[in-house]
Amino acid sequence: MRLQDLTTPAALIDFARMQRNVQRMQQRMNELGVSFRPHVKTTKCIEVAREQITAGAKGITVSTLKEAEQFFAAGIQDILYAVGMVAPKLKQAAALINKGCALKIIADSVDSANAIIEFSNQNKIPFEVWIEIDTDGHRSGVKPESDDLLAIGRILHQGMVTLGGVMTHAGSSYDLNTPEALQSMAEQERSLCVLAATRLRTAGLPCKNVSVGSTPTALSAKNLQGVTEVRAGVYVFFDLVMANVGVCTPDDIALSVLTTVIGHQKEKGWAIVDAGWMAMSRDRGTQKQKHDYGYGQVCSVDGVLLDDCQLSSANQEHGIISTTGPESKEDISTRLPIGTQLRILPNHACATGAQFPEYHTVVTSNGGMPEVGSTWQRFYGW
Amino acid sequence: MRLQDLTTPAALIDFARMQRNVQRMQQRMNELGVSFRPHVKTTKCIEVAREQITAGAKGITVSTLKEAEQFFAAGIQDILYAVGMVAPKLKQAAALINKGCALKIIADSVDSANAIIEFSNQNKIPFEVWIEIDTDGHRSGVKPESDDLLAIGRILHQGMVTLGGVMTHAGSSYDLNTPEALQSMAEQERSLCVLAATRLRTAGLPCKNVSVGSTPTALSAKNLQGVTEVRAGVYVFFDLVMANVGVCTPDDIALSVLTTVIGHQKEKGWAIVDAGWMAMSRDRGTQKQKHDYGYGQVCSVDGVLLDDCQLSSANQEHGIISTTGPESKEDISTRLPIGTQLRILPNHACATGAQFPEYHTVVTSNGGMPEVGSTWQRFYGW
Repeated sequence: MRLQDLTTPAALIDFARMQRNVQRMQQRMNELGVSFRPHVKTTKCIEVAREQITAGAKGITVSTLKEAEQFFAAGIQDILYAVGMVAPKLKQAAALINKGCALKIIADSVDSANAIIEFSNQNKIPFEVWIEIDTDGHRSGVKPESDDLLAIGRILHQGMVTLGGVMTHAGSSYDLNTPEALQSMAEQERSLCVLAATRLRTAGLPCKNVSVGSTPTALSAKNLQGVTEVRAGVYVFFDLVMANVGVCTPDDIALSVLTTVIGHQKEKGWAIVDAGWMAMSRDRGTQKQKHDYGYGQVCSVDGVLLDDCQLSSANQEHGIISTTGPESKEDISTRLPIGTQLRILPNHACATGAQFPEYHTVVTSNGGMPEVGSTWQRFYGW
Repeated sequence: MRLQDLTTPAALIDFARMQRNVQRMQQRMNELGVSFRPHVKTTKCIEVAREQITAGAKGITVSTLKEAEQFFAAGIQDILYAVGMVAPKLKQAAALINKGCALKIIADSVDSANAIIEFSNQNKIPFEVWIEIDTDGHRSGVKPESDDLLAIGRILHQGMVTLGGVMTHAGSSYDLNTPEALQSMAEQERSLCVLAATRLRTAGLPCKNVSVGSTPTALSAKNLQGVTEVRAGVYVFFDLVMANVGVCTPDDIALSVLTTVIGHQKEKGWAIVDAGWMAMSRDRGTQKQKHDYGYGQVCSVDGVLLDDCQLSSANQEHGIISTTGPESKEDISTRLPIGTQLRILPNHACATGAQFPEYHTVVTSNGGMPEVGSTWQRFYGW
């Protein structure tokens, strides 16, 4: 199938780039001597997860129990649900465990730990729980040096529950953009998570797994001593935010949105396309970064960057491409006539992908023309 | 069903508020003597559209051909596809017309008009086409005083094609926030669209329909002389952007996201909830308005505004509620303990709704406790 035969807007995966991204990360993890557990929240797509596992990944990370259910149904058993567990969700988690899923859940408070133990005791569910550690102050987790860490650990080392380890996510790495700062954050993430593990072990508690990660720190860490596994998600597609962080280039970005020019405002130098925010998402993650890409970077249909064209504004089903180059603005309608197909690189692959029920893989034939390969479903909701 | 029995995050519709919003708009249109054609892009939900039609709406507006297909399959025939038509989409539109759908399409350029005529002649499709008019410079449309208007009109008055009218959307009304400015924009939208219709008629061309609208202008227009119908979408739910524009209050907002507290960072005064940007969307539409609501306004589970609590930050499946009130930040874990359910009012109902596969209606029983009524599916994609 040709790209011209797709209904636009459509989400495209450059298959060769995705494979290169998968190989790059897995090879790095192999060299650092750690397991790799990709975060499948980025893609919510079985076929992408299979590529990651084929490359060497051990298990997956999920952000919702629906993801756990969908990927378990597709045959993946080793699943870490990396959002803090609360009582109302324990029944859904227990159902997965009862079906044979090796689900790990996380907790970062005494209250949550108590709720897990209570449910486990009442319902005879052998939960494996990891403690979430706050290594950068950006979101959830218990401080590695806190009394709470040991208190939570002791609660979770009871009955049928297994205290399986510690995990952290240095999400503030997204705010950095130099190799030095990223390496420093990776070392902070590593050392504070290892500190938490050491404190638990010193207190006589088990801590088999020490799990860290974010795409920027995973790609920047110099050593991962004491760490057993790394998690990362967006690396599989990369995006403009990651290009600004400095861990990829725009040429690594595997996800794009295929769109069609539907009109112009010649005197403004605008081309109107059918990729609005419903297609791109409302993510403006590059707004505060060194290069603000608007709602995305425009490329030709065969993927060549059009450096002077940006998706500068977006309504629900309308995107506005404006030009910053030296060409006369009046040229926009001859340069990008109505019906022209373009591809837009996203600010944030997790958010843009989520707008689509499916991805179309794009492969480049010998003649150099991109063609549509497979169509891969993705799911959404909770 | 109780709200406590829902998996969070979940999209809730306050049924009484929605009905009030529907009645308010329809009554206004009746008083102004125009038809009303709701834009169903906000909800993409058959049951909501049926409420609007029961109240008196004539036909619907859609933003994608998928919406047209879905609503036509549910029995709605009179559909305006309000995004500029281009050649690659004509086949899909023609299939709907061949099935009996009274689909109207739009064009704002000579090139698009020519493509429509060419396809119609080749395939014997009796397209009805309305010309899109640019009345506020914010997006698409041909200028009402332009030569192109008449050129497009003449092209579309040929063969089996019917030139059905003119339509415009003064989307820049979203940037206003005083009754005077809104009334002025409504009058601009009306008068320039009527000007376009008059010019077409003076040139001997038909122009039966004169269609205008956006939620802010629809609710602000003082007279709609010369207009035959109004379109609006977000009014059915309203949202915080519309509250800032001044056409509703937070108490009118019918859409909210039910969420659960999953953790705290006590020293920061944070409660962490399971509504991140995947649930709220990345829409930050109130960022540049007079009141920036972050990612949403927090309410208690029964809908009471918690004025000092805002969803100040969002990751994919984590939201951070921070307090701005005089209470000690340390109080957050006793005030909003783990497991507490809350409701978040969205910045932009179209964007937040789109994150969910379904809505749950909420009705308030005699005892005053909210209960879950029906579950209504919504669709997505193209």
